[in-house]
Amino acid sequence: MEKLSMQALNRPTADEYRKQEKMPVVLVLDNVRSGLNVGSVFRTADAFSVERLVLCGITAQPPHREILKTALGSTESVAWEYFSETTQAILSLKTSGYRVFAVEQTTSKTWLQDFTLDPDEKYAFVLGNEVDGVEEPALALCDGAIEIPQSGTKHSLNVAVAAGILVWEVARKNLQIRTGA
Amino acid sequence: MEKLSMQALNRPTADEYRKQEKMPVVLVLDNVRSGLNVGSVFRTADAFSVERLVLCGITAQPPHREILKTALGSTESVAWEYFSETTQAILSLKTSGYRVFAVEQTTSKTWLQDFTLDPDEKYAFVLGNEVDGVEEPALALCDGAIEIPQSGTKHSLNVAVAAGILVWEVARKNLQIRTGA
Repeated sequence: MEKLSMQALNRPTADEYRKQEKMPVVLVLDNVRSGLNVGSVFRTADAFSVERLVLCGITAQPPHREILKTALGSTESVAWEYFSETTQAILSLKTSGYRVFAVEQTTSKTWLQDFTLDPDEKYAFVLGNEVDGVEEPALALCDGAIEIPQSGTKHSLNVAVAAGILVWEVARKNLQIRTGA
Repeated sequence: MEKLSMQALNRPTADEYRKQEKMPVVLVLDNVRSGLNVGSVFRTADAFSVERLVLCGITAQPPHREILKTALGSTESVAWEYFSETTQAILSLKTSGYRVFAVEQTTSKTWLQDFTLDPDEKYAFVLGNEVDGVEEPALALCDGAIEIPQSGTKHSLNVAVAAGILVWEVARKNLQIRTGA
């Protein structure tokens, strides 16, 4: 067993990547304060062919020193847009036919493992601020909430890690739908 | 749908947590340079009841300013130990009956989604340095490698995000085994 070389990994260029088919999945970052977290979400979005990031409110936008540090170039491959209000971003996504889910701990939610993908739907997932989570007015507009089950002493995961877990679970289920595996 | 209060989340204290049943899963950090990444892995380990972290080589150890910043107290709940050599850590784990897998892109691997858990086995997963991945001598000692499938321009995920995805997938499968769901 040997590590694969960069060449063997055969990754697409940013140009090639932009033309590749994407998952019909948008990630909405609701006032994510840390540029390091935003950059890390860009890198994850690149890895799993997320359609687009929507950066809202105080969420840092590229070019930005902290984002560049963790995005490692993926701001060149991943499409993104900015809304000053998360609520406006959600309304716009709903108008465009997306089903919108908050990743949040709420009184009414679906556990991540039980969340099923409809191959005919497009999805947007809202990830909230590091301290406050998804803001209440944005939450009220969502079609539902998804919770990542946790058993620890902390009340949440790091937002970039939560985004990674969510996107992986969606990508895995998307692959299952497409391959029937 | 309302956000759950801290009280409603009903998280255990660090003392209660230490007595809770853990997943028979150890994470080995092989020369992870960034304390921010290490702290984030602590927080993830807390969330999913990982048995223990094994910090190796140049991997920062608590107490450490950067770790504290992202661990948010989880260094108090999650058990950890240190080895100067990753190879020694792996040999020790194998002697204690753990099956050891590198999370790495290699010529011979199992895709993460296809990795199956045996309920009678204990597992250790090795995550590598941010630039160099898992070192060759450590890789050579592993029982196998697990690869997270990626379609992007980058060659890897952030190590804390990769750890999150891995631990979630293992926790999900562990839950499936225990509940039969």
